[in-house]
Amino acid sequence: MIRKIQHIGVAVQSLSDAIPFYRDVLGLEFLGIEEVAEQKVRTAIFRVGESTIEVLESTSPDGPVGKFLEKNGEGIHHLCLRVDDAAAALARAREKGVRLIDESPRTGVHGMKIGFLHPKSTFGVLTEFAEGEDGP
Amino acid sequence: MIRKIQHIGVAVQSLSDAIPFYRDVLGLEFLGIEEVAEQKVRTAIFRVGESTIEVLESTSPDGPVGKFLEKNGEGIHHLCLRVDDAAAALARAREKGVRLIDESPRTGVHGMKIGFLHPKSTFGVLTEFAEGEDGP
Repeated sequence: MIRKIQHIGVAVQSLSDAIPFYRDVLGLEFLGIEEVAEQKVRTAIFRVGESTIEVLESTSPDGPVGKFLEKNGEGIHHLCLRVDDAAAALARAREKGVRLIDESPRTGVHGMKIGFLHPKSTFGVLTEFAEGEDGP
Repeated sequence: MIRKIQHIGVAVQSLSDAIPFYRDVLGLEFLGIEEVAEQKVRTAIFRVGESTIEVLESTSPDGPVGKFLEKNGEGIHHLCLRVDDAAAALARAREKGVRLIDESPRTGVHGMKIGFLHPKSTFGVLTEFAEGEDGP
């Protein structure tokens, strides 16, 4: 069961350039910066209603966001949906013929269980499932 | 003041191909199809928490979604943020140096007042403000 948009991930070249847009132009609440070493990104997180926008800066050209920027330039990188049970949601997608990036959930930020569907099976949208509480 | 993610617009080649993914694989509530002649799109709308996903099929190659598909292929096309006052939100953005597509709000689906910021000023994300009630 999908509950909400957990976050939208936006790839940018530079967090320090992009933060003022989200914080000062849009006026969104800035929740802080986190580094996710495994994904080779630093992310600035902004609250929007029940969702967040995660602005992503690559820490290495060979990370997933670095490769995305090289190919596509800046823009929306992925959509994360909050689910009750990430393992069940991945299994259901696989059963319906969707190609998965993660066959079973792995641990993401804040201990959430996360897993990605392959954009070739999702009409071009890199789609993530996330289970668990992400804090405020 | 930004209240929530109003919707995410996803460009696809074919609604009839994409609807089963959102309805049957993700299991989202399908709210119906609308045609927006001015934007040269047909959109299938799905509820996700307080937001919706609008899956967009172009009705003409020279429309904005048709051009996007030609250039980028399928994927997330835009992000729409619910605001209290679209005219004020556009004016604030302009004042802060953001390039606008719409200098003042125009009327969108369900009589909402909408306006777009130019992606060159928003780190690659085509960003829409929308004011008003969009129904359930």
